[in-house]
Amino acid sequence: MAVYTDITEDDLSSFLTAYDAGTLLSYKGIAEGVENSNFLLHTTKGPFILTLYEKRVDRNDLPFFLGLMHHLAERGLSCPLPLPRKDGALLGELSGRPAAMISFLEGMWLRKPAARHCREVGIALAKMHLAGDGFQIRRENALSVEGWRPLWEKSAARADEVEAGLQKEIGQELHYLEAHWPGNLPEGVIHADLFPDNVFFIGDDLSGLIDFYFACNDYLAYDVAICLNAWCFEKDGSYNLTKGMALLTGYESVRPLSDDEAAALPLLARGSAMRFFLTRLYDWLMTPAGALVVKKDPLEYLRKLRFHRAVENPVEYGLSR
Amino acid sequence: MAVYTDITEDDLSSFLTAYDAGTLLSYKGIAEGVENSNFLLHTTKGPFILTLYEKRVDRNDLPFFLGLMHHLAERGLSCPLPLPRKDGALLGELSGRPAAMISFLEGMWLRKPAARHCREVGIALAKMHLAGDGFQIRRENALSVEGWRPLWEKSAARADEVEAGLQKEIGQELHYLEAHWPGNLPEGVIHADLFPDNVFFIGDDLSGLIDFYFACNDYLAYDVAICLNAWCFEKDGSYNLTKGMALLTGYESVRPLSDDEAAALPLLARGSAMRFFLTRLYDWLMTPAGALVVKKDPLEYLRKLRFHRAVENPVEYGLSR
Repeated sequence: MAVYTDITEDDLSSFLTAYDAGTLLSYKGIAEGVENSNFLLHTTKGPFILTLYEKRVDRNDLPFFLGLMHHLAERGLSCPLPLPRKDGALLGELSGRPAAMISFLEGMWLRKPAARHCREVGIALAKMHLAGDGFQIRRENALSVEGWRPLWEKSAARADEVEAGLQKEIGQELHYLEAHWPGNLPEGVIHADLFPDNVFFIGDDLSGLIDFYFACNDYLAYDVAICLNAWCFEKDGSYNLTKGMALLTGYESVRPLSDDEAAALPLLARGSAMRFFLTRLYDWLMTPAGALVVKKDPLEYLRKLRFHRAVENPVEYGLSR
Repeated sequence: MAVYTDITEDDLSSFLTAYDAGTLLSYKGIAEGVENSNFLLHTTKGPFILTLYEKRVDRNDLPFFLGLMHHLAERGLSCPLPLPRKDGALLGELSGRPAAMISFLEGMWLRKPAARHCREVGIALAKMHLAGDGFQIRRENALSVEGWRPLWEKSAARADEVEAGLQKEIGQELHYLEAHWPGNLPEGVIHADLFPDNVFFIGDDLSGLIDFYFACNDYLAYDVAICLNAWCFEKDGSYNLTKGMALLTGYESVRPLSDDEAAALPLLARGSAMRFFLTRLYDWLMTPAGALVVKKDPLEYLRKLRFHRAVENPVEYGLSR
């Protein structure tokens, strides 16, 4: 929630001359996006999001992110569409930062999604996986199994501050995941961060997916596992089988999981829980007290990890087999 | 620049049932307004600003502020117009706070206004003064001459931390202003805070005035003096006579100043500089180090105060007489 960079009307107007975006009517900094500065623009051609990419985003990744949105939108997925400049480039520069004009997607994210919404999310995720086919740029997943140990080593020594015994438990879990991580599941472009705040609805209808800034190439089923973690647990930590069934049925109505993918689901879900546990643990330990960032509780993902460790058969997630 | 209160779609949708505002399509918290939480809504009926009034705003003042915007907009002034609820009320409640739906005003504020913009501001200010006639609710100006001493007493003992000799200089100035403040100039509803960020332009055309949350009843010419301070000084502290002339000529093209008002202008400008000096000084001394608020330099207004003290004749501001 931040606007890091302020922009002046003069700079913005001059930036916009490179686009066929109409005449500027207004712009407001919006409290959305943790990594970037975002503005909502109204022009005579309609609303747009203007994103300025701040330092935490690697400039080398921007052609992947913007190209992917363009690729997915062209294939009919409802997601923000970067507006090309008159010279064809998707990226410009404003106030010394890389900047892009992106179509405004109407919709709101659901603070309390129900099973019917999980079904829509499953459908949209599968459609995204199919639409990603043929996208030419690759981006490795820096937060998949090879990335976890370096991340863990930054926090391990202090992990027991968060819960006694954590250093040992996570150390063992990490060894297990590294030894058993699957080697040959179907790959493609995954969203990798499809939490409720990245899925817009108007009423009960899903209006689109946003925030592709963690997207990368990885196992498609790993993305499903991320969504099970993000959408199908209740606040009390319990797994909601109805939501899981809805999400998986929705997904499989568009792209059925192979037997290998289905069998790997518990392990992928453990891995996905590990990934979010580790980044949250790091932020928890490293964010200075009093910083204006909401620290997310890493233990939420420790509990999910333990749940998945006890799952013996993917039907326990609600998968119909 | 803040969104203090987050709202959920459920609460917002239920709030909106009291209005004839169309179907909600999206809402974004915007980084605008220091005292309140503001959201930009898109509905099937267009864009709106939703304002939640936080604790710093006195609830008893809200009927004045909202009623005034309604009064001014009805009389043709371009300003945000509160949307009445179906029951006629201008104020509702959302997330435990008083809240209003307000029409969205297109336009941008100018970071570097030129003389031609100052002329437009003068015209708009005079139009506002005429349009305010007949508004039935009164609100005293808590930041006029009677309010300065109580404010000064909170900072006086520490004033020399900001500049040596300040305690003595401001003490004397305050005595002078209290002894010489005019007693019978034309009164009306004034904006009282018409700084560049409260005036919107599209290109070079003024599209409207916003932020009436300091508006009150006071001398109309005092509002002119506030604008001279807010619009007609350069960053180096010098008074820009061309801008002053443009602003005053614009104002007088709609509402000529009386001889008494013209004669009082240097004193009113000193008072207006005192008012902004005192609130800035207080914030400067009282805001904790490290707070995320941009502290505005009180010395900017001390320099303006000294300038006005040396003005002997209002023609020095660019007034044609």
